[in-house]
Amino acid sequence: MRPPEVDVCFTPEEIRPAQVAVVIDVLRATSTIAQALAAGYPRVVCCSSVWTARALRAPGSVLAGEIDCLRVPDFELGNSPVDLAVAGCRGEELVLATTNGSPAIVAASHAADRVLIGCLLNLRAVLAAVPVGAPVMIVCSGTNGRPALEDVYVAGRLVAALGGLPADAARVADARRCPRGCVGRGRVGRRRRQQLS
Amino acid sequence: MRPPEVDVCFTPEEIRPAQVAVVIDVLRATSTIAQALAAGYPRVVCCSSVWTARALRAPGSVLAGEIDCLRVPDFELGNSPVDLAVAGCRGEELVLATTNGSPAIVAASHAADRVLIGCLLNLRAVLAAVPVGAPVMIVCSGTNGRPALEDVYVAGRLVAALGGLPADAARVADARRCPRGCVGRGRVGRRRRQQLS
Repeated sequence: MRPPEVDVCFTPEEIRPAQVAVVIDVLRATSTIAQALAAGYPRVVCCSSVWTARALRAPGSVLAGEIDCLRVPDFELGNSPVDLAVAGCRGEELVLATTNGSPAIVAASHAADRVLIGCLLNLRAVLAAVPVGAPVMIVCSGTNGRPALEDVYVAGRLVAALGGLPADAARVADARRCPRGCVGRGRVGRRRRQQLS
Repeated sequence: MRPPEVDVCFTPEEIRPAQVAVVIDVLRATSTIAQALAAGYPRVVCCSSVWTARALRAPGSVLAGEIDCLRVPDFELGNSPVDLAVAGCRGEELVLATTNGSPAIVAASHAADRVLIGCLLNLRAVLAAVPVGAPVMIVCSGTNGRPALEDVYVAGRLVAALGGLPADAARVADARRCPRGCVGRGRVGRRRRQQLS
């Protein structure tokens, strides 16, 4: 049997129809979502804009997110996974609107039968959730339409672990998980450390 | 002085305004252009379509190219750098129309002040032609809108040689020049060997 194809979109612009999509926004949306579920939220509703999030405000909902890296004044939380872990679960659902990650998730949901959320916190869970033999499209959320190194790094980790038939873009991402001057030496951290808290 | 930024577009969709663009289509347009100039053509006219190329037919012009990997029946040459080297210079200008490379060059010419043509045959010439201190946008032509490994490999070689301030996409490409399972082991050749002649 031919192994399933694994492809990578370096930005959401490249999203196309797929059976399974794994969306990655390490800094920060998908890390925040993983943290929210770990904190006890039964669900996280991803929005393409802060306006959509506001429209979904309801009893039991907690609004979180950012717009252009700034906290939204009328939202209960920012988009920090650390802040979310400290705050703990405060409602029945987290409504999340961020600049890059949550719109990428919404876009992927229009193109893929199943959308998974990937980050460094949940790689094993993602791998366990991918149906055996299914082709996978990994979507890097990037930053304002450009590839983000930390997303490509996680994409590369997934490409290697999935072990399917990698498309060229997946092979490019796979090389990026190699530690030569990358995450292993903390260069991502230097550049975006202020966004991490 | 801050070093100049070096960025990489994995596909022509990502092209944006730039001072200097280096367009890469290893298989085959930019390799064919380098070969044409080496064969003695004074100039190569790049077209966004075979119809544009036909409109430019004139005494002294030689039409070359492909459409969906097939030779164009009324063109004098295909898009093979080897065939072009064998045929030698047969006119005053080569008019080139291919599926990915020549449209990417045309697109880059609308966005950049200066467009250079890069491939494995002319890396030193490209490096010598980049103005000192200029930010560079490297454009991978890709294949039908998706990244092509051989283009990203050459982009990575340029990123490393240029030594500027690499954007995240440039750092991703830089990792791809690492020989782990890439061009050095001939995997590109296995996949597209039939396109190489």
